[in-house]
Amino acid sequence: MELKLSGTQIEDLIKGGFGAKQKMFNIESLVPGSVRIRTPFQPRMLRPGNVLSGPALFTAADLAMYALVMGHIGPELMAVTANMNLNFLNKATPGDIIAEGRLLKLGRKLAVMEVSLYSSADPETMVAHATGSYALPAKR
Amino acid sequence: MELKLSGTQIEDLIKGGFGAKQKMFNIESLVPGSVRIRTPFQPRMLRPGNVLSGPALFTAADLAMYALVMGHIGPELMAVTANMNLNFLNKATPGDIIAEGRLLKLGRKLAVMEVSLYSSADPETMVAHATGSYALPAKR
Amino acid sequence: MELKLSGTQIEDLIKGGFGAKQKMFNIESLVPGSVRIRTPFQPRMLRPGNVLSGPALFTAADLAMYALVMGHIGPELMAVTANMNLNFLNKATPGDIIAEGRLLKLGRKLAVMEVSLYSSADPETMVAHATGSYALPAKR
Amino acid sequence: MELKLSGTQIEDLIKGGFGAKQKMFNIESLVPGSVRIRTPFQPRMLRPGNVLSGPALFTAADLAMYALVMGHIGPELMAVTANMNLNFLNKATPGDIIAEGRLLKLGRKLAVMEVSLYSSADPETMVAHATGSYALPAKR
Repeated sequence: MELKLSGTQIEDLIKGGFGAKQKMFNIESLVPGSVRIRTPFQPRMLRPGNVLSGPALFTAADLAMYALVMGHIGPELMAVTANMNLNFLNKATPGDIIAEGRLLKLGRKLAVMEVSLYSSADPETMVAHATGSYALPAKR
Repeated sequence: MELKLSGTQIEDLIKGGFGAKQKMFNIESLVPGSVRIRTPFQPRMLRPGNVLSGPALFTAADLAMYALVMGHIGPELMAVTANMNLNFLNKATPGDIIAEGRLLKLGRKLAVMEVSLYSSADPETMVAHATGSYALPAKR
Repeated sequence: MELKLSGTQIEDLIKGGFGAKQKMFNIESLVPGSVRIRTPFQPRMLRPGNVLSGPALFTAADLAMYALVMGHIGPELMAVTANMNLNFLNKATPGDIIAEGRLLKLGRKLAVMEVSLYSSADPETMVAHATGSYALPAKR
Repeated sequence: MELKLSGTQIEDLIKGGFGAKQKMFNIESLVPGSVRIRTPFQPRMLRPGNVLSGPALFTAADLAMYALVMGHIGPELMAVTANMNLNFLNKATPGDIIAEGRLLKLGRKLAVMEVSLYSSADPETMVAHATGSYALPAKR
């Protein structure tokens, strides 16, 4: 496995693809087979009980997978999530969301990955764990 | 199974719990064992390719489950998602998100549900399917 | 959607593919989009507590999906399970396992299905629910 | 986290609980938070194409989780699988099944775990990955 894009290139492609005014997340590390991204805290990530919401954690997991796929197959915005399974483990205290993704398989049709999720406010406690697959475009 | 809350009561509780200025979704139907909610379209639901994003569909599925749990156990904002599995089936053309939830089990510790997701722009095509569980508070 | 094989043809193909001496299950119903199979009870399906085991229920769900895929794409033994998610809902009293499968999507690369599982000893109680996907062979 | 039982004690309890004549698997390693088990190859584990079947891999994953739960909560046969999600990654060449389990969370109600699965015939290739949860008995 080798990388086709740098973290900065991926951040820019995703920002452009979403038509966002600013970066949605920072890729703190990208090496063959794994990625670490940070999604900055925003108040709308909270749910009742003052914890990070399920959708916020899903979004971070999905972005980590998207970055991992693009890093390994190149500038391909059309890869799409096929399946995502999340286990919510512990209350997620408000903070940036840290998502550490790992490629389990990069096949022709599917990439399968797992992501461990943390809050920067309590970086020792895994708050959720995701596994998922992305369907890859046919011609690459 | 009987209902403990009406759809309007649930909409208000969730709006209040999230500190939202307006309703986040409409409960179009709530009967014992099932619910149908509509989340109005917003441009930020889109991802590249002009389709509804995974996080937007996750959010709708999660809200349908939350409404289903509250409808059956009462005004309990502290029920939390334990597990969520989503399969993304078809491109979701931009529109309101319709989520049809069904209770598979209401136990003492866990409620297990499934949700079928549609876009109002193409109401015949299931765009995603979710199953998930909520951990229920101990004393009720 | 139309069927490419009858239930009896699928039973025979699977029996042959597994080199089994006798049928592993009966296809009680097969119509476009759905299937119902019965796996006869065997004592080795039990786990401590005198309930049907997780692996026995997984097997029934997987066979229902395999039958559903073959019914819709033809005599293709090489379709393989890509993902399977099971929620175990209620104690499964010993009996034949009834698996009712439904096709959620038949794509070019993946078929996505859900299966509801029952014991014949208590046919009103859903004991487990599965969703899963099969990777389909490239040339068909 | 500390262990309540040794690997040998767990092997014996499970063998006894299932009324089995011989051990169903070997616990090769058990330390706080993780386990490694080996399920010896048997011809009935194969599916068409001469690969280890989904049910065989499910069974190994489930046993690894069961062993992990018993190791950490004590001699409790009544813990039951609540949810199991498997991603099948690569063809599993015939061999013993090696299952490496890791505890993600040990809560009061649920234990959440992940398991990486390998064939002894090709020990570098992960053939499947599972995450799952066990519902724990109330009084312990």
